[in-house]
Amino acid sequence: MLTYSFDDRGGVPLYEYLYNQIKQDIISFKLSADEKLPSKRALAKNLNISIITVENAYSQLIAEGYIYSVPKSGFYVCDISSAKPMSADKPQRVTKPVTDKKKYVADFVNNSMSKDSFPFTVWSKIMREIMSDSSDKLMVRSPSAGVDELRNAIADYLYQFRGMNVEPEQIVVGAGTEYLYGLIIQLLGQDMKFGVEDPGYEKIARIYGANKVECVHIPLDEGGISIDKLEESGADVLHISPAHHFPTGFVTPISRRYELLSWASKSSKRYIIEDDYDSEFRFLGKPIPSLQSIDVLDKVIYINTFSKSLSSTIRISYMVLPKPLMEKYKKELSFYSCTVSNFDQYTLARFIDEGHLEKHINRMRNYYRTQRDTLLNCIKKQSSYNKVKISEEHAGLHFLMEIETKLSDTELKKKAQQAGVNIAFLSEYFYDKSNAKSHTVVINYSGLNQERIEEGIKVLFGLI
Amino acid sequence: MLTYSFDDRGGVPLYEYLYNQIKQDIISFKLSADEKLPSKRALAKNLNISIITVENAYSQLIAEGYIYSVPKSGFYVCDISSAKPMSADKPQRVTKPVTDKKKYVADFVNNSMSKDSFPFTVWSKIMREIMSDSSDKLMVRSPSAGVDELRNAIADYLYQFRGMNVEPEQIVVGAGTEYLYGLIIQLLGQDMKFGVEDPGYEKIARIYGANKVECVHIPLDEGGISIDKLEESGADVLHISPAHHFPTGFVTPISRRYELLSWASKSSKRYIIEDDYDSEFRFLGKPIPSLQSIDVLDKVIYINTFSKSLSSTIRISYMVLPKPLMEKYKKELSFYSCTVSNFDQYTLARFIDEGHLEKHINRMRNYYRTQRDTLLNCIKKQSSYNKVKISEEHAGLHFLMEIETKLSDTELKKKAQQAGVNIAFLSEYFYDKSNAKSHTVVINYSGLNQERIEEGIKVLFGLI
Repeated sequence: MLTYSFDDRGGVPLYEYLYNQIKQDIISFKLSADEKLPSKRALAKNLNISIITVENAYSQLIAEGYIYSVPKSGFYVCDISSAKPMSADKPQRVTKPVTDKKKYVADFVNNSMSKDSFPFTVWSKIMREIMSDSSDKLMVRSPSAGVDELRNAIADYLYQFRGMNVEPEQIVVGAGTEYLYGLIIQLLGQDMKFGVEDPGYEKIARIYGANKVECVHIPLDEGGISIDKLEESGADVLHISPAHHFPTGFVTPISRRYELLSWASKSSKRYIIEDDYDSEFRFLGKPIPSLQSIDVLDKVIYINTFSKSLSSTIRISYMVLPKPLMEKYKKELSFYSCTVSNFDQYTLARFIDEGHLEKHINRMRNYYRTQRDTLLNCIKKQSSYNKVKISEEHAGLHFLMEIETKLSDTELKKKAQQAGVNIAFLSEYFYDKSNAKSHTVVINYSGLNQERIEEGIKVLFGLI
Repeated sequence: MLTYSFDDRGGVPLYEYLYNQIKQDIISFKLSADEKLPSKRALAKNLNISIITVENAYSQLIAEGYIYSVPKSGFYVCDISSAKPMSADKPQRVTKPVTDKKKYVADFVNNSMSKDSFPFTVWSKIMREIMSDSSDKLMVRSPSAGVDELRNAIADYLYQFRGMNVEPEQIVVGAGTEYLYGLIIQLLGQDMKFGVEDPGYEKIARIYGANKVECVHIPLDEGGISIDKLEESGADVLHISPAHHFPTGFVTPISRRYELLSWASKSSKRYIIEDDYDSEFRFLGKPIPSLQSIDVLDKVIYINTFSKSLSSTIRISYMVLPKPLMEKYKKELSFYSCTVSNFDQYTLARFIDEGHLEKHINRMRNYYRTQRDTLLNCIKKQSSYNKVKISEEHAGLHFLMEIETKLSDTELKKKAQQAGVNIAFLSEYFYDKSNAKSHTVVINYSGLNQERIEEGIKVLFGLI
């Protein structure tokens, strides 16, 4: 008869302790396969515990497949071939400082946002309102493409601030543009060839790579994507940022825009993904109109994010699909759950509707303009100012600075880093290095610490 | 000389109005390609406006590519081949009732959560705390796999409530399990053959389908996935729910678990995805240990979600990767941004650390047990109770009800729907319909309205 002492069971319930003892005996082969166990009544009597305790232990062992019951006969041990005891150590917590990145005097590569910029108070107030007045809606599963309230708000926003006329039903909300790229691949097909800008934002090509779709790098000329090279490349889908190219800052002129649309019109497979990532931050004049707004042939997929305009703390992006593609999405991909929580969706919708997004963007535009002006003034005061040429400073959150120097980009970058200043060169963003333009620094200023700009610039200019 | 009246410009700034007038003249070919525009000074004088206004208008036209400037000569019209005016109608808002689904007396298919169940007050309190005491951390970009705080909290939780010993570094946080499946495909490779359970949760196969990876359906026997059929299928990666199969509710016994691990050990390509979607809701005894906890060969990818245990309002899921796969993730996929906002990550971490998740799950387990008991009691009171057999009622949020009936599943389903009761049959979850078991209803009760259970059951039993 099985006999166990319950002296060491600590705070574990009786049945669980018994279950564990029997399980250990089965795992260690003290009880062998098909061996009969005592009846519940007999074991209860032997251990001086209640029958219900034995019953619970046996039930758990049956559920997990350690024993089986034969009606009107009793309980038997299952055949366990090679069980191994699991380790019982408690996992170690990871504790790291908030950031373990190298601390620079100035980091002109980092494009994070200012820490003080997020409107916590308003956001939190709206969240509380949503929780108290819309808790019913919060518990209803979001449609795949996002809740109506947010899609309405985005359509209004695009109309007012980008002059775009899209229907809320064309909008798909998702947790970040990277996630939406993945959806686009699934929507258009894995066998499409995707073309990206060279130079460009490297991550886009990596995402196509990770999804195992063919991706070609297409060189730019002074008007943006070169149409000849585009035709040569055999790309089906072109991924571009016509309003503000990264990192050169070029705006694709209207004539080239029509050429691109004309290229797209030549095959039913062809599409253009318009990545409008920082169109809100233009310091001179109005925002550049989107390519989507002059597309009458349903060839442009417009994509944008609130992670840039609002905060990277928020992970909400969206795309505007041409109507026929939206129909395809509904048929083929709308089984996916929306990746943005209802909380965030409803909060953002109200945040936009009540005008807070507009205010926030205006405030941030001023903030970044000041950042940029401080930086430019600082640069102008340097004695070797005549050795640099600034360009593309009127939009986005970075500009270019061409330097007269005998040092190679790699040498200068290394020297700067050793002196405590992090910089990136335009040449680093080229896939085809033979086209790369040297001696041009890409200066990101969105995340700069205002108090250390002067120091950083002095250090940098001391090297050139 | 260009002449425009400013009488109708309304509230538009002067420069923007002028820019629009000139742009319209270019688009409508009133101004032709390469035509010279008046100098800034001359146009300003002619229109009786300031030079700076003309300058701003010309700058915008240059930025958008409508005109170009030739140094020391002047401004010229670009060649615009086929511009089309954009429509200026404001987009229509979509307004729909909160839900446009058919209203049933009782819906036994719907598996949404109770509307009153989400701990809004605590969640909101923690969010406010996070905003006020951690706003710095909120603005720092999350590591790709999630912030340390949340990964620590999840590791602790898995240790305490699932007896699993995983390191926080093995955890990847993402916006929903569906998103994580996509990452797994990218991690293991598009050329792998994925095996899913038949019957099973249809969405999983659809996700593999949408990602264009080969997916085979593997039949179950009484012990779960049939090893013979698994070998026959040629699957490399097996996607299963060993703790509680959907929809049959079967638990994979320990012997079969070892057979599955043994199958996985036979090739370096082979992996098992353990989908532990509702392991928290077991009403009898302890939770079933995970397959991951007996895997010593790094073959099991464990995946779970808080959308089920906490609320579908929250979109946070996670997976535990075997250490070598985590290394691969870091190398190949950690360029991806985390899809869950920092807000939600830090809030959930604190929610778990302070014990609220445990309390919430205990409360929900009781709530669902009551739901289930009400439902079962109701069923027992029906006069045709002897015609049904209930099984698998001890875990998860659904059970099976076999019905003695001469009607086909399709007929009975239709009759029930006409009478206002929505039901789904086990047979609907079979891919290979020739294996399908008839006359068994899958009764989901998580989202049932308690007050209408009795009415719904009466209607249903009136039909059988």
